[in-house]
Amino acid sequence: MQTRIWKSAASLADGREIIYFDEAPGLGRDKFADTRDLGRAAQHGRTGVLDTAQGTTGGLRWDPLLGEWIAFATNRQDRTFLPAADSCPLCPSRPGAPTEIPAPDYDVAVFENRFPAFSGTATPDEELAGDIAPAGQTRPGQPGASQTGGLLASRRATGRCEVVCFTPDHDASFATLTPERVQTVVAAWADRTAELGAMPGIQHVFCFENRGQEVGVTLQHPHGQIYAVPFVPPRTQQMLASARAYQAGHAGRFFDDYLAAQLADGRRIVDRNDEWTAFVPAAPHWPFEIMLFPARRVPDLAALTESAAAAFGEVYLRVLGRLDRLFGTPMPYLAAWQQAPARDAPARADFALHLQVMAMRRAPGKLKYMATTETGAGIWSNDVLPDTAARMLREAG
Amino acid sequence: MQTRIWKSAASLADGREIIYFDEAPGLGRDKFADTRDLGRAAQHGRTGVLDTAQGTTGGLRWDPLLGEWIAFATNRQDRTFLPAADSCPLCPSRPGAPTEIPAPDYDVAVFENRFPAFSGTATPDEELAGDIAPAGQTRPGQPGASQTGGLLASRRATGRCEVVCFTPDHDASFATLTPERVQTVVAAWADRTAELGAMPGIQHVFCFENRGQEVGVTLQHPHGQIYAVPFVPPRTQQMLASARAYQAGHAGRFFDDYLAAQLADGRRIVDRNDEWTAFVPAAPHWPFEIMLFPARRVPDLAALTESAAAAFGEVYLRVLGRLDRLFGTPMPYLAAWQQAPARDAPARADFALHLQVMAMRRAPGKLKYMATTETGAGIWSNDVLPDTAARMLREAG
Repeated sequence: MQTRIWKSAASLADGREIIYFDEAPGLGRDKFADTRDLGRAAQHGRTGVLDTAQGTTGGLRWDPLLGEWIAFATNRQDRTFLPAADSCPLCPSRPGAPTEIPAPDYDVAVFENRFPAFSGTATPDEELAGDIAPAGQTRPGQPGASQTGGLLASRRATGRCEVVCFTPDHDASFATLTPERVQTVVAAWADRTAELGAMPGIQHVFCFENRGQEVGVTLQHPHGQIYAVPFVPPRTQQMLASARAYQAGHAGRFFDDYLAAQLADGRRIVDRNDEWTAFVPAAPHWPFEIMLFPARRVPDLAALTESAAAAFGEVYLRVLGRLDRLFGTPMPYLAAWQQAPARDAPARADFALHLQVMAMRRAPGKLKYMATTETGAGIWSNDVLPDTAARMLREAG
Repeated sequence: MQTRIWKSAASLADGREIIYFDEAPGLGRDKFADTRDLGRAAQHGRTGVLDTAQGTTGGLRWDPLLGEWIAFATNRQDRTFLPAADSCPLCPSRPGAPTEIPAPDYDVAVFENRFPAFSGTATPDEELAGDIAPAGQTRPGQPGASQTGGLLASRRATGRCEVVCFTPDHDASFATLTPERVQTVVAAWADRTAELGAMPGIQHVFCFENRGQEVGVTLQHPHGQIYAVPFVPPRTQQMLASARAYQAGHAGRFFDDYLAAQLADGRRIVDRNDEWTAFVPAAPHWPFEIMLFPARRVPDLAALTESAAAAFGEVYLRVLGRLDRLFGTPMPYLAAWQQAPARDAPARADFALHLQVMAMRRAPGKLKYMATTETGAGIWSNDVLPDTAARMLREAG
């Protein structure tokens, strides 16, 4: 049964938007004002000062070797780094101690990142593909280089970066949320996927969470982030290219056959219910990598059925529990929602929403690093066999 | 002027090969026997026990989502991790303290890795493309998915992994080598590129070095590694795809035009001499990323002219000095030789050898992490503008 969510929005002191997703009506959280004087620096992201591609503070630049846009955001060098618990910017505001969240309590809160890598709205001109990107980049699923020059191309880093706070409890983690709260988080992700994906020039909405200082987390409070970006990310393009190449030679759809092959093999299934299957892929990049696929293929979170959205938390919370029990210590991980492009209808028909969980610990006290073979060449080595990883995760149930 | 190098080879106790590159003749280093009893475990890499793709200890598995082979090597879990200086396996052997290098001294020594991710020789059958790889992987420059199924494909991880010791001095680093020693290292890299590239089934030879525990270095002694692998790595494929897409629409060659664009722009040149240019690319992925291109395009290290090989050290040593002076502390970095595929003649004609140096420190005490946007989606953010990075590196001269 779908939990009903009540949504309201307000503005922070510097004009950034905050959105509350409440589990009960009439809480009036949007009525609390942000009393801070955020000064000039915090305005940059809103005013677009940082967005001039040719300026000195940011923008996107084109790497013609790999055919990728890279975002430059010099305003992020001084972003908040592991603050003490009593000055956490993601806790609810207390009298005399205002935070990023003006309300004195919340269930799930989403706000625009104060240190965004992407910000500002695309102009109609920028929305026209070809005017804003070297060719190649404008055809999702065709990773490759510029065909029109563009060896030194640049453009504005339009888009939006949001922070998703999962709970007001500073010491919680996603793994300790209730299934009901997970449902609220899923509803917030779905809402943001739809709203951000409809904004001018947005080509992709990337929702993710990570946990652990080992993986670069700079705020301990349980939260995730959303990047709404003006291009289809390289990993998404690569998966779409894989799907198209496969479908050119097969009757079946790539992602359906991919999931069916995992289920038929069976050895790497970690957990499941009627709506979701969690498995270690046959060729994981990380020591403990887990994919969560819904039983019925959809392009993105906004397209999940109510029953699928409601059933996600059961499997995911069990998976996170397994990861933490594996070595008896909280597992550092990245969790990435792989979604279809926001606007490309054929790509949306090909793609399959899934959550990719990448856990970095390969043994007690040992982390998997991306070393030179991975970073410099894309040659991945993995010390843990996927069948073994799946068995260990099942036994940590 | 090319330094003359004297090369000799011997066998370690478990049959692995060691090759000495001496700067003087008649040193007889190959005459020193390896007195160790290495036991059974160390034999695995030689006997191919680890190479059965279907077995429980390793092999390559195919990731159909990204169209990549992943190497599994469970023997690497227990590899040597930051040993004390007096038990360093890369120092020359001393009486009563045998190491991986039986000789009591050396200039540059190369030996087969005791814990290889790739080992064993491809059979004639395995050399036949299509028999050993899903289609798609067999066409370098066309990254993508299997067109013949292969959703759960696997194969043996044939190939060879070597360790390159740059100096017997345990406390040195590449940055403190003499230009003459760098020339010997370059000669060793060129020799290994040619020899390994000619072995059955080898499609690519990847020479690299990294420095710093921050980037996963497990042995402090100054050394690099070489991976000779049975596929063209994803990054190489992507660059080749970029080159072909560009050349389809331009009269010029992609890599020539790429280098010319950097030189014409000029703002990101860090250092140069007549034979080499070191520059920060226009869209670097890392805070301080530097490319070193020879003035005359060649496919790989083995194809460098004598004068280019001799002139490399001058520029590279200055670049490494700049990196270390930048924040007044040794800079953790990865250095990757980007080389052409070993066997694909059209690809070799398109490609341009270059060294990619990726330095991880973005500010004093702050490292660039590959966070979830980079790892999960390929959305890269960089806090340091390339023009600024180049200026800082020039001023650290």
